[in-house]
Amino acid sequence: MTGKLYGIGLGPGDPELMTLKAHRLISSAKVVAYPAPDTGESFARSIASGVIPAEAREIPIIVPMRVERFPAKEIYDKAAEEIASVLSSGEDVVTLCEGDPFFYGSFMYLFERLSERFSIEIVPGVTSLTACAAQLQRPLTSRNDVLTVIPGPIPDAEIEHKVANAQAVAIMKVGRHLARLKALLARMGLLEKAGYVERASLAEQKVHRLVDLDADSAPYFSMILIYKGDEAWTLPPSFSS
Amino acid sequence: MTGKLYGIGLGPGDPELMTLKAHRLISSAKVVAYPAPDTGESFARSIASGVIPAEAREIPIIVPMRVERFPAKEIYDKAAEEIASVLSSGEDVVTLCEGDPFFYGSFMYLFERLSERFSIEIVPGVTSLTACAAQLQRPLTSRNDVLTVIPGPIPDAEIEHKVANAQAVAIMKVGRHLARLKALLARMGLLEKAGYVERASLAEQKVHRLVDLDADSAPYFSMILIYKGDEAWTLPPSFSS
Repeated sequence: MTGKLYGIGLGPGDPELMTLKAHRLISSAKVVAYPAPDTGESFARSIASGVIPAEAREIPIIVPMRVERFPAKEIYDKAAEEIASVLSSGEDVVTLCEGDPFFYGSFMYLFERLSERFSIEIVPGVTSLTACAAQLQRPLTSRNDVLTVIPGPIPDAEIEHKVANAQAVAIMKVGRHLARLKALLARMGLLEKAGYVERASLAEQKVHRLVDLDADSAPYFSMILIYKGDEAWTLPPSFSS
Repeated sequence: MTGKLYGIGLGPGDPELMTLKAHRLISSAKVVAYPAPDTGESFARSIASGVIPAEAREIPIIVPMRVERFPAKEIYDKAAEEIASVLSSGEDVVTLCEGDPFFYGSFMYLFERLSERFSIEIVPGVTSLTACAAQLQRPLTSRNDVLTVIPGPIPDAEIEHKVANAQAVAIMKVGRHLARLKALLARMGLLEKAGYVERASLAEQKVHRLVDLDADSAPYFSMILIYKGDEAWTLPPSFSS
């Protein structure tokens, strides 16, 4: 009997936005894997830190932080083999994932290496998408709205076409693309209809109307939501802080 | 001091996919509101039934089930006034919402009636979107994929255009539109790249390749996910059951 690999969504950052199922599985885990930077704390581990048993074996998957967070093939190859050897011994492995494992998550790099050999269960989590909408105090989608989720790094022309053809728009991974995205949305006349959230649900969260945001770059975990159809949309003044 | 209105996402159906925060707030609620059909059980209430205190006052918002689930203005006007009177008395009201309150949720009908008068907090929940992806065992979005979420009831031509222009596609609210959507995706050559999930995470969940699904209509809570970019995509045979 081989062990089972769990990909566990932890939600956007507030440990209370973890699901009961995530909490149960992490609490009883014997082996816990998670992505980690080469310096500093693992964000995924920090969300679950109050729940990981002291005696659990930990497998940090150390991916050096670069400007582009492209997957480092050798790192995931090696991590997958370490996890495979635990699974082969009959032990389960719980992998901690920020947000949801299958929503722009790095868990896919383990999944694609291990899914043919081992049983895998994905535990979905709260995504930053709805966590940001909650903070902006405005429904993300209603009735028959089409929602388009766009990664910030793709080219302007592509973003412009997508934005023009959707009712509700989220732009993820804003990061160092902030100035370019602000300029693009200004040209499209949408700056006043956009909200900005960084580090949703964490103590250091920031929530702004995009038009009020005085910055040229943003953290990786930041998002722009555009309320195109809503003529009157504006954040309550209390949020521009 | 007026009370606070909570819109609480309960996740897709499995009570264990509720967040710790939802669990805490519902456990200590004095007044609980939720949408309910005119006959049968409230789905939202059923997810939280193990957590609602026996002594809590319950405010069911009874919306008759019709073919189109359009909002019934008078019903929400009346429910909002009942909730407003509780909030005005200084008591909080916890509103139970399937999935996430701001992701195609009926909570918006209360929100738009009460947000100018009362303090509202949204607790995001796991959406059916990532719950279905978890069940289909395939990443929903990766790297710089654009994701488009399309409600099934919109016209064919509009759906075709959206699908043609996205990498990852989810079609929500499939319901009685199933036969039409299957025909459309067959014409686009995408039938073999689509997965189908109904009642994700519940005991009665069904997971199929869309091409194997022998039905012309589906429950309201059903979804099609299309893996356009993935030449080789197929569900494991174990899922076609």
